[in-house]
Amino acid sequence: MGNESFGRYISVIYRHLQILLNNRLNSYGVGSGQYIFISAIYKNQGISQKDLTKLIKIDRATTAKALLKLEQNGYVDRIKDKDDKRYHKLYLTKKGIDFIPILDEIQNDLTNILSEGMDPDEYSKTIKSLELIFNNVQNSVSLLKNE
Amino acid sequence: MGNESFGRYISVIYRHLQILLNNRLNSYGVGSGQYIFISAIYKNQGISQKDLTKLIKIDRATTAKALLKLEQNGYVDRIKDKDDKRYHKLYLTKKGIDFIPILDEIQNDLTNILSEGMDPDEYSKTIKSLELIFNNVQNSVSLLKNE
Repeated sequence: MGNESFGRYISVIYRHLQILLNNRLNSYGVGSGQYIFISAIYKNQGISQKDLTKLIKIDRATTAKALLKLEQNGYVDRIKDKDDKRYHKLYLTKKGIDFIPILDEIQNDLTNILSEGMDPDEYSKTIKSLELIFNNVQNSVSLLKNE
Repeated sequence: MGNESFGRYISVIYRHLQILLNNRLNSYGVGSGQYIFISAIYKNQGISQKDLTKLIKIDRATTAKALLKLEQNGYVDRIKDKDDKRYHKLYLTKKGIDFIPILDEIQNDLTNILSEGMDPDEYSKTIKSLELIFNNVQNSVSLLKNE
């Protein structure tokens, strides 16, 4: 790869992962950028769009675009909050809930692909390193916001 | 993070990395999806758009969009191939070449952020693991293409 930096590897792995995800999600009408919202709403039924954006650590525009697609394709319902009509609460539809086990299987399949040839010790050490890298970038991004 | 899989970590690290990159590249009129083309053309002056797409392991549309922006902002020249006028060869402009040391500094800075708190042994083991993960996803993507 020439330049052996974490950033370079993370980027090329990410791009390949999107190809694999799109290939598996394609027939369900779900994009690689959308499935993560299905999981998050499933675990947090009734969450607001604002809280969902925070939870996924993404920008508001990306959330709005993904939710629109998921609503159009019948995975997500947006219900007006009774107490405050300016806000919507997000729920999975039956189609969305039925998709959860399929999504779990896709994610397990991808985890198996990614970790092929790695022993359990190497796997857990790599997870620990990725956790450290994630904390480092997260701290650095939060410093930007306080600038 | 709840679901402790490689894929989930790769995705959130990638998204945070894009924020950090955009923050640093913003004042130069270069997007986080474009800088990689500057480096690649620098190392391969005169490369064709087709070969560049292959080299970066990205899709043609993304390459075309990034090159248009880089040409508009004065970083890249597209010169018609004398031998075959259907093709263009890509070169960095003086502005593009002058940007290389700045880009190196930005990338070094990000590598330092990502690897903060990691000793040299952990660093090289993590690079080795990321290399394995990359080979795994690359093999899996190439199997898709042969389906």
